[in-house]
Amino acid sequence: MDLKQASKQLEQVRNQSLAYTNKGSVASYIPELAKVNSHQLGVAVCLPDGTILSTGDADVPFSMQSISKIFSLIVALCQNGKEYVFRHVGKEPTGDPFNSIIKLETTESHKPLNPMINAGAIAVAGMIRGANVDERLDAVMALMRKMTGNPHLSINQAVYCSEKKTADRNRALAWFLKDSGILETDVEETLDLYFRHCSIEVTAKEVATLGMVLAADGILVNTGERVIPEEVARICKTFMVTCGMYNASGEFAIDVGIPAKSGVAGGIMATVPQRMGIGVFGPSLDEKGNSVAGVKLLELLSKEWKLGIF
Amino acid sequence: MDLKQASKQLEQVRNQSLAYTNKGSVASYIPELAKVNSHQLGVAVCLPDGTILSTGDADVPFSMQSISKIFSLIVALCQNGKEYVFRHVGKEPTGDPFNSIIKLETTESHKPLNPMINAGAIAVAGMIRGANVDERLDAVMALMRKMTGNPHLSINQAVYCSEKKTADRNRALAWFLKDSGILETDVEETLDLYFRHCSIEVTAKEVATLGMVLAADGILVNTGERVIPEEVARICKTFMVTCGMYNASGEFAIDVGIPAKSGVAGGIMATVPQRMGIGVFGPSLDEKGNSVAGVKLLELLSKEWKLGIF
Amino acid sequence: MDLKQASKQLEQVRNQSLAYTNKGSVASYIPELAKVNSHQLGVAVCLPDGTILSTGDADVPFSMQSISKIFSLIVALCQNGKEYVFRHVGKEPTGDPFNSIIKLETTESHKPLNPMINAGAIAVAGMIRGANVDERLDAVMALMRKMTGNPHLSINQAVYCSEKKTADRNRALAWFLKDSGILETDVEETLDLYFRHCSIEVTAKEVATLGMVLAADGILVNTGERVIPEEVARICKTFMVTCGMYNASGEFAIDVGIPAKSGVAGGIMATVPQRMGIGVFGPSLDEKGNSVAGVKLLELLSKEWKLGIF
Amino acid sequence: MDLKQASKQLEQVRNQSLAYTNKGSVASYIPELAKVNSHQLGVAVCLPDGTILSTGDADVPFSMQSISKIFSLIVALCQNGKEYVFRHVGKEPTGDPFNSIIKLETTESHKPLNPMINAGAIAVAGMIRGANVDERLDAVMALMRKMTGNPHLSINQAVYCSEKKTADRNRALAWFLKDSGILETDVEETLDLYFRHCSIEVTAKEVATLGMVLAADGILVNTGERVIPEEVARICKTFMVTCGMYNASGEFAIDVGIPAKSGVAGGIMATVPQRMGIGVFGPSLDEKGNSVAGVKLLELLSKEWKLGIF
Repeated sequence: MDLKQASKQLEQVRNQSLAYTNKGSVASYIPELAKVNSHQLGVAVCLPDGTILSTGDADVPFSMQSISKIFSLIVALCQNGKEYVFRHVGKEPTGDPFNSIIKLETTESHKPLNPMINAGAIAVAGMIRGANVDERLDAVMALMRKMTGNPHLSINQAVYCSEKKTADRNRALAWFLKDSGILETDVEETLDLYFRHCSIEVTAKEVATLGMVLAADGILVNTGERVIPEEVARICKTFMVTCGMYNASGEFAIDVGIPAKSGVAGGIMATVPQRMGIGVFGPSLDEKGNSVAGVKLLELLSKEWKLGIF
Repeated sequence: MDLKQASKQLEQVRNQSLAYTNKGSVASYIPELAKVNSHQLGVAVCLPDGTILSTGDADVPFSMQSISKIFSLIVALCQNGKEYVFRHVGKEPTGDPFNSIIKLETTESHKPLNPMINAGAIAVAGMIRGANVDERLDAVMALMRKMTGNPHLSINQAVYCSEKKTADRNRALAWFLKDSGILETDVEETLDLYFRHCSIEVTAKEVATLGMVLAADGILVNTGERVIPEEVARICKTFMVTCGMYNASGEFAIDVGIPAKSGVAGGIMATVPQRMGIGVFGPSLDEKGNSVAGVKLLELLSKEWKLGIF
Repeated sequence: MDLKQASKQLEQVRNQSLAYTNKGSVASYIPELAKVNSHQLGVAVCLPDGTILSTGDADVPFSMQSISKIFSLIVALCQNGKEYVFRHVGKEPTGDPFNSIIKLETTESHKPLNPMINAGAIAVAGMIRGANVDERLDAVMALMRKMTGNPHLSINQAVYCSEKKTADRNRALAWFLKDSGILETDVEETLDLYFRHCSIEVTAKEVATLGMVLAADGILVNTGERVIPEEVARICKTFMVTCGMYNASGEFAIDVGIPAKSGVAGGIMATVPQRMGIGVFGPSLDEKGNSVAGVKLLELLSKEWKLGIF
Repeated sequence: MDLKQASKQLEQVRNQSLAYTNKGSVASYIPELAKVNSHQLGVAVCLPDGTILSTGDADVPFSMQSISKIFSLIVALCQNGKEYVFRHVGKEPTGDPFNSIIKLETTESHKPLNPMINAGAIAVAGMIRGANVDERLDAVMALMRKMTGNPHLSINQAVYCSEKKTADRNRALAWFLKDSGILETDVEETLDLYFRHCSIEVTAKEVATLGMVLAADGILVNTGERVIPEEVARICKTFMVTCGMYNASGEFAIDVGIPAKSGVAGGIMATVPQRMGIGVFGPSLDEKGNSVAGVKLLELLSKEWKLGIF
């Protein structure tokens, strides 16, 4: 890969996608997110040797939101093993919106269909071990600090508080899971942990680095240290394909073809097996909760660099 | 009505129904209710002049459970008017179980379909006014004390605590309602109020008296005092027909034909317009949550005395 | 009842309701029905002695549509007994629209919830016996001719053809019932029968007479002859309360309080136990499929004459 | 790839999976399929140069059933373009069973969620052009004959007739689609076409060849001729990952990680991009409709040969 040319192409697709920031709108149900400038768009690419290419708002911090679901799942799998985890949460994509509660009642097992929808991610948060919420949070933070190489990674307090105040639907999901016996830990503590995960602040560059570790099957790009078991990394990439982009995952798989996970703050973490991690930030969302310009950018980039895995 | 003969007939139908206490089982999801002797069966009839006929376990106290939904609705309607109340809860029966959450998501308004299912009753509890939960509880207690003439009517603390500990599905419903803006008051306070309503302790005789007041369109049998507006009494009786017996209401309307409301402690309050109130207590429940022997008893009594309104 | 005064009051409520014909619109999915003048409004009342009061468009013929569901049910019950019928169709109201298919899949028995929704009525049509469709139709026609005293009652061919051409959703319901084993007879023949039932042409006056027979528990007003078993008449009146007005039945029960069945041609048959049958015709429908002006008229009449049964 | 060793490994995994034919059972709802010997298990692998390795019942003919959905989709996309096709059918996986009708009613567009569930495949069949059903069938047959190099590929008449007789749920789906305007062609003709597609008879070896063409992005292994546009091949492989194995697709993606499509006659077509096509035949099915032993075999083979794409 010619880095100079790659940088230029990255800038081009970013510029071609910029107009899409006028479509959609920032997440409104979390007041802190509603304050963000919707016209931002940044992208960063992290290569196997750790090189980072970037353009646009790639250093602007934003909260991970649903992107954190991947890292909670990694920790839950490492702490509990996959047998235990998948007794409490399923592996199947769903055609329902990310905050839907219907299938918790209609499926016989009452298990959330997968760990990428809110119900599933809350169930996963309930499986993260620790003496208290702080310790349980640290388990995830420690992993992410190691993966990004940023020891100062921390949560955005304003987003966390905003989230906590407006998360009534998530509370409904958590209590339903508690009632079914899926959630075995304390509801409010688990929700608190879940909100904090969502509020972890990152930049597109850091997200690209996170994506590269997954692309390398769990190995740190700089040191070669394994931080995630290979099977766990593979499981995450699979979920990113089947349910990473909410109920637009199928469309994204066809149009872009890269494992990816989005968050309602406008971030997308994409991972091209063996080749690269990609971080995108574009806070204007479509009606399904994905970054409008971010999806467009990834579609163009995937075509330009032939990144699709299918 | 020949009282002697009526008493004898009442005894007969009670005895004919007694064997049905062997079918079904006591409510198991609230531990306090699971302790009750399932072979009990009592019935009381209150006539327009206040005369009470009774047989079997008609003086055994039990918690009202869902029967209280009628009295919360009365207070909510009196305090807020029907326009306000029915902006927050619907008037339609539903084929779903009493604790179902599905329709809260699928109906466009997110309104619970009616005030007799749990979601609807929680929404109604949220509309009961008062400076605090005690005052809000008193509004309902005061009405029921007046209607029964029992100033000592009170809640069963053990049932209340048991209920509060095991009510996670109700918490899910309440938070969903909060999220949709249907529930405007504090969730935990409203649930606390709802659990207390469910724990009010009555006997079959008292339930018969309550039913007679509704049968008399809201007028106290002894004093002639109006305690419920006529229209409110009529609304309650209508709901008792269309959704009083959970998702067996349609069958009960055909087989028995009397407005009635059941509770999972095994009570049923029935009301025959102008003619009588009936209180039944039989804690063994069918799979839909209605007293097995109690339903049988009312079916036999309705045939014997031609009580059906259709 | 002072007939002169009653006639005057009938005229008054009809005039007060006339403006409501401007709301809503005629059924559009059956082309033949879409041609009808939406400003018509007629009402007829049939008293226990056979006297008929009427005003407005009470002699305008219209197709029964869903009102016919009552008469199919009567014939099915008489031919098969209630045990058989209710093994194939339920007794419970549903919060779903009349043409909904969801519950056929989600309920364990796959039984339609009640005989008043399309799925249930198709199941009922499947239970009507006869050597062929003509004979099966005649079973229902013969009953209705006897009840109305009109030997010339017949089906509207244009409506029947229009119905048959546009009934794809009903075909979906029927094939689903066939697949579940609920519908045991030939699908196309049963649908044909169902469409013919829907196309039987009546006037508001005839509907009032039909309603009076039900009000009299199945006895012909003029001759005293029993044409419907008492229990069958009672079952029908009960269904008219719990599910006669589609998924607005609960609201109608509260606001009007009379057993009633509506049809999408704008007809409503109401029946006040022992007192009267009422036929209404007002083809402009609300979004749930009920005559807007017709419902208003019945609400006003119920208040004026205190017809509510609760 | 050492062919000798590969053949030996193939035999080994086949033998290790053989015991799984004792689990599950053959499809019972299509009588012709119920007659099949459930203990069969065959596998074939087609390599980029056309070499075929195989073991077990790899020459036993079986009907394609849902595997044919891929080839109908290819023809529909080639004839109509993807804009048109995806206006009538979605791209999203669903957590519902393959024959579910619920989402057709609950989603606003009434579009089947994807072309791999029955509703979606019927919609796709409706888009295949031709003067009559024979011509429309030939469009698919011609493609498959070219892909397999077998000019005698034909449908199994007994299966086709059996299918046609017992396909009432599919009829319900088709009529629902007709009612929503999703299906624009004749219902019975389209169903007839759909049943014939399902009845096309192939062997595991032929399925492996079909899978290899997709693995090669649409190019014939022997001649290098392009028979499917690259984008169409890619779309198919993506659907095979997100929804190829019914509502066990997510689990299969995690455990096996290869694009695959199964059918209820026990066949599975898998495709490993650039590397190989795999055909499996094992008629004993799990409760979701996938070959029990076939899935196991693919899981073992994927581990042995590192075939996973994630």
